[in-house]
Amino acid sequence: MRIAQLCPPWLAVPPKGYGGIEWVVALLADGLVEAGHEVTLFATGDSETKANLEYVYEEAPGSKMINDIVLDTTHTLFALRDARERFDVLHLHSPFSALAAGVETGVPTVHTLHGSFTPDMTRLYSYVADRAWFVGISEAQKAFNESLRYGGVVYNGIDMDFYRLQEEKDDFVLFLGRAAPEKGWLRAIETAKRAGLHLVSAVKIAHWTEEEEWEQRIKPALPSDSEVMGEITQEEKVDLLRRAKAVLFPIDWPEPFGLVMTEAMACGTPVIGTPRGSVPEVIDDGETGWIVDVEDYVEQAADRLGRLSEIDPHVCRERVQRLFSKEAMVAGYERVFERVIATG
Amino acid sequence: MRIAQLCPPWLAVPPKGYGGIEWVVALLADGLVEAGHEVTLFATGDSETKANLEYVYEEAPGSKMINDIVLDTTHTLFALRDARERFDVLHLHSPFSALAAGVETGVPTVHTLHGSFTPDMTRLYSYVADRAWFVGISEAQKAFNESLRYGGVVYNGIDMDFYRLQEEKDDFVLFLGRAAPEKGWLRAIETAKRAGLHLVSAVKIAHWTEEEEWEQRIKPALPSDSEVMGEITQEEKVDLLRRAKAVLFPIDWPEPFGLVMTEAMACGTPVIGTPRGSVPEVIDDGETGWIVDVEDYVEQAADRLGRLSEIDPHVCRERVQRLFSKEAMVAGYERVFERVIATG
Repeated sequence: MRIAQLCPPWLAVPPKGYGGIEWVVALLADGLVEAGHEVTLFATGDSETKANLEYVYEEAPGSKMINDIVLDTTHTLFALRDARERFDVLHLHSPFSALAAGVETGVPTVHTLHGSFTPDMTRLYSYVADRAWFVGISEAQKAFNESLRYGGVVYNGIDMDFYRLQEEKDDFVLFLGRAAPEKGWLRAIETAKRAGLHLVSAVKIAHWTEEEEWEQRIKPALPSDSEVMGEITQEEKVDLLRRAKAVLFPIDWPEPFGLVMTEAMACGTPVIGTPRGSVPEVIDDGETGWIVDVEDYVEQAADRLGRLSEIDPHVCRERVQRLFSKEAMVAGYERVFERVIATG
Repeated sequence: MRIAQLCPPWLAVPPKGYGGIEWVVALLADGLVEAGHEVTLFATGDSETKANLEYVYEEAPGSKMINDIVLDTTHTLFALRDARERFDVLHLHSPFSALAAGVETGVPTVHTLHGSFTPDMTRLYSYVADRAWFVGISEAQKAFNESLRYGGVVYNGIDMDFYRLQEEKDDFVLFLGRAAPEKGWLRAIETAKRAGLHLVSAVKIAHWTEEEEWEQRIKPALPSDSEVMGEITQEEKVDLLRRAKAVLFPIDWPEPFGLVMTEAMACGTPVIGTPRGSVPEVIDDGETGWIVDVEDYVEQAADRLGRLSEIDPHVCRERVQRLFSKEAMVAGYERVFERVIATG
């Protein structure tokens, strides 16, 4: 297949720092090339890919330019020139001018729902619901808005070589994420206290609501032996994930995917989550971690931390290889592309 | 003809306050309806028009939302549904998602160049140069970038009923505009001083560079009898234009059109400009005002202020009626639309 991968023009693929979508696209573009497809990646000039790279902007302008309308339109006009002659399918990772133009080209246009269904985005999608082919990143996300025409559900994949198995664990449990209340950092702290375990947290505090959560609710609850890190590199993250006894994932919102669960499990580290969003699809309860009630998280998760020997790290990793690896993702998108091309 | 007029979704048509493009579109949409065409205007719900109004947003979100990428894309996806079946021509007043999508619909897509050719916009246009039909708002603007495929040049039109002729003038000359250095406010002040005339200025000071110009260069030069107003309403503006002996337009940049020159002339008020941008196309030198050197503006414009009796207010107004009225604009766009539909 002749596949166009369109990333937004703000960050490089893969990203130099933060950038979840760009990591997914980097793996997908490489994987599709390895699978024998002709792939053109539209991104920024400082991207690294096995696909044919085409770009307007030599260097990624960075996150302060995210959603800049001039960049977005320029990139789209550049990418979609002669799309009809060049591509069998367009795969868009950004829902703006590329989506509006893509569906008018006549080339089947696939859009992956990387974000959440905010009211604004739900309205935007409503006007293109039957013209694009949508891909959910979990069944839960798809179920949240059934009014769109779906090409399928494809889980985000990770590079299994990057997240290596580690069976011997250090003496701590881990919380990774933002300080937003719905991410449940406070529940993680109370759980570790109750279980009598040392907690390491690597947390992004950027938004003022996160600042407020940190000052008013987290700081007073934090035990003195608790270790808090700010934003960390990918390498630091993998190191923590491999060494942790378990990852606490006490969310209280409909997380569309939750990459950190698969990153942990790939390293052989169990995850204790809640029945929210994609979590029940990602964690195999009792096999690769546990799913416990949000309301009773502290007590139940503390109980499970006493039963960690029941979890086999190899089973955790095997689940990721089968469902959430780069290879699984590439195969998933191949099925979607074949389907939408056949439907036309 | 079945014509779609697409305005961006930030301001109402016509605008409640500031908004040059929205005034032009308001007159054009009404004028095309009056000429017997089937016109659909995509704008905000608080717009007033003789065209069929369609919209996503009930109320204009206002100028702080200008260039919001979510609004822009949502509006475009809404407007271009079934464009192929509904319209013979698309006329876009915004160069973002509507332009990227419009050129893919197969419907001839006309875009009016309401702004200047900044480096960013020149690059954006370069990728759609041969797919859209561009309309310049002056020959000078078109000459600035000949690499685009032009459907023609159409001057912005005004409502002649709104700008009534006034032959008896009050004892002042007028400067209207922003405090940006290239607009030449300082030259206007020096000219009035030299001619011994009272100057009224209605000036927008918004950007920090304009603030700086005001504090450092204008204030020290301003005579004590000089009258300075901030942003004014359309009604106040027309009142000033009608009563002024002359309008000083001492610009030093390639102004793409300069609506205030036609507004002044419609009221029978001569304009003293410079040979920059569209000015030589708008002012008939010696008949509806004068064109004098930028470098020698103060001396030459002061001289012309002594010769105002040579100008016939009726000749000023007649020129606007013929070239810069709503009727002239509607006829101009009719010619463009017929041409691009015939070419396909």
